[in-house]
Amino acid sequence: MRALLGSGGFRTEERRQLYNDEMRRHFGDIKRILFIPYALHDHEAYTNLMTERGLNAGYEIDGIHRHADPAKAIREAEAISVGGGNTFRLIADLHRLDLVDLIRDRVINDDLPYMGVSAGTNVACPTMQTTNDMPITQPSSFKAIGLVPFQVNAHYYAGSIWVKHEEEFVEHFGETRDDRIREFHEMNETPVVGLWEAGFIRVENDQFELIGAQARIFRKGCDPYDVEPGCRLVELG
Amino acid sequence: MRALLGSGGFRTEERRQLYNDEMRRHFGDIKRILFIPYALHDHEAYTNLMTERGLNAGYEIDGIHRHADPAKAIREAEAISVGGGNTFRLIADLHRLDLVDLIRDRVINDDLPYMGVSAGTNVACPTMQTTNDMPITQPSSFKAIGLVPFQVNAHYYAGSIWVKHEEEFVEHFGETRDDRIREFHEMNETPVVGLWEAGFIRVENDQFELIGAQARIFRKGCDPYDVEPGCRLVELG
Repeated sequence: MRALLGSGGFRTEERRQLYNDEMRRHFGDIKRILFIPYALHDHEAYTNLMTERGLNAGYEIDGIHRHADPAKAIREAEAISVGGGNTFRLIADLHRLDLVDLIRDRVINDDLPYMGVSAGTNVACPTMQTTNDMPITQPSSFKAIGLVPFQVNAHYYAGSIWVKHEEEFVEHFGETRDDRIREFHEMNETPVVGLWEAGFIRVENDQFELIGAQARIFRKGCDPYDVEPGCRLVELG
Repeated sequence: MRALLGSGGFRTEERRQLYNDEMRRHFGDIKRILFIPYALHDHEAYTNLMTERGLNAGYEIDGIHRHADPAKAIREAEAISVGGGNTFRLIADLHRLDLVDLIRDRVINDDLPYMGVSAGTNVACPTMQTTNDMPITQPSSFKAIGLVPFQVNAHYYAGSIWVKHEEEFVEHFGETRDDRIREFHEMNETPVVGLWEAGFIRVENDQFELIGAQARIFRKGCDPYDVEPGCRLVELG
């Protein structure tokens, strides 16, 4: 089983380079990737944007919405990539179209390589409950594909946030990301990997390697700790 | 029908003063307020904290969790206040205990004054779908109390956010709040009031007055616009 799970925030030249290098290493010598654009509203525009923004690593990006039978498209795919956007919208569509178990089956049993970024990483986890997104639609279930035995919090950052008000930085007093993950552990047991922007987790069966950025590991009842890129993430199963 | 809906972020002396002034003006000459602490994990600690932090405006704060029959407590309350925390946890408990319709009935038909802050403001809206919180638990429904005909996005800010990494401000590339609200309007029609921290909306029947901070008004298909404190919010019904 092989998955490449990105945090998002691939907005600088250096980050896009890493993104493309990792994507090529992950998918190897194939031509076409089946792309799931359900996290954004305009599926066709999103699919085209991946190539226009140079986030296709030379592969042909084939939007699943172009197929009359999305389940058949997944059954026939050589590789699958799930893009970012709103995780509630993405998981609602995956459940509505009955694709969650099918994707898990193909990735786990047929070695179909999976790539997810941001929302696409959230849905690779046991549930989508560590998303940062707004619940713009109510999915039938928060259960997700479950390729890994931990949750990822994408676009992770530590500490407070600041906003600019008339060119001055003003501290924002909403919950920090660590507050939110602590609250997650008041109601759930699964470990959470807070993955900084530009980072990836390379998954090969039960091996998890951190690439490109730091991560902070949160386990219920334990102090969180930071992991440097290049390290293996252990004891997350 | 009277409601006082706060954004949150009451962390400076000036903001706490406004909070207490508005709270006294809203509740007037009563002794005790029924407090709903379900958005945080530790109900007793949260209830006590309201007085310890000087956020009780001299009133006795009576936690609903101290009552064996929460519905009876609401039926007998003179005033109700719903605190902030995690909106998913709050609405899950309100639905589980069958309190959503009861609170609406008492506030609308019996003139029970309602105060909400942050998550407590989210659940006063038609749904809780403009929360910023993490979906740490799955409520039976996103439907909320519906005291006002618009959604509030609490802790609102405009533009990007910055985080501090080794004392330097680094821009964060997750969706901005405006992106998230635009996505809400791709799937929903209800207007959204983005309420900056420290702000309140004073609700008297179908009159909505903005106090203490700016707000940005988002209507589907229209350009958002900013409203200054002291103004009435119009055309939101």
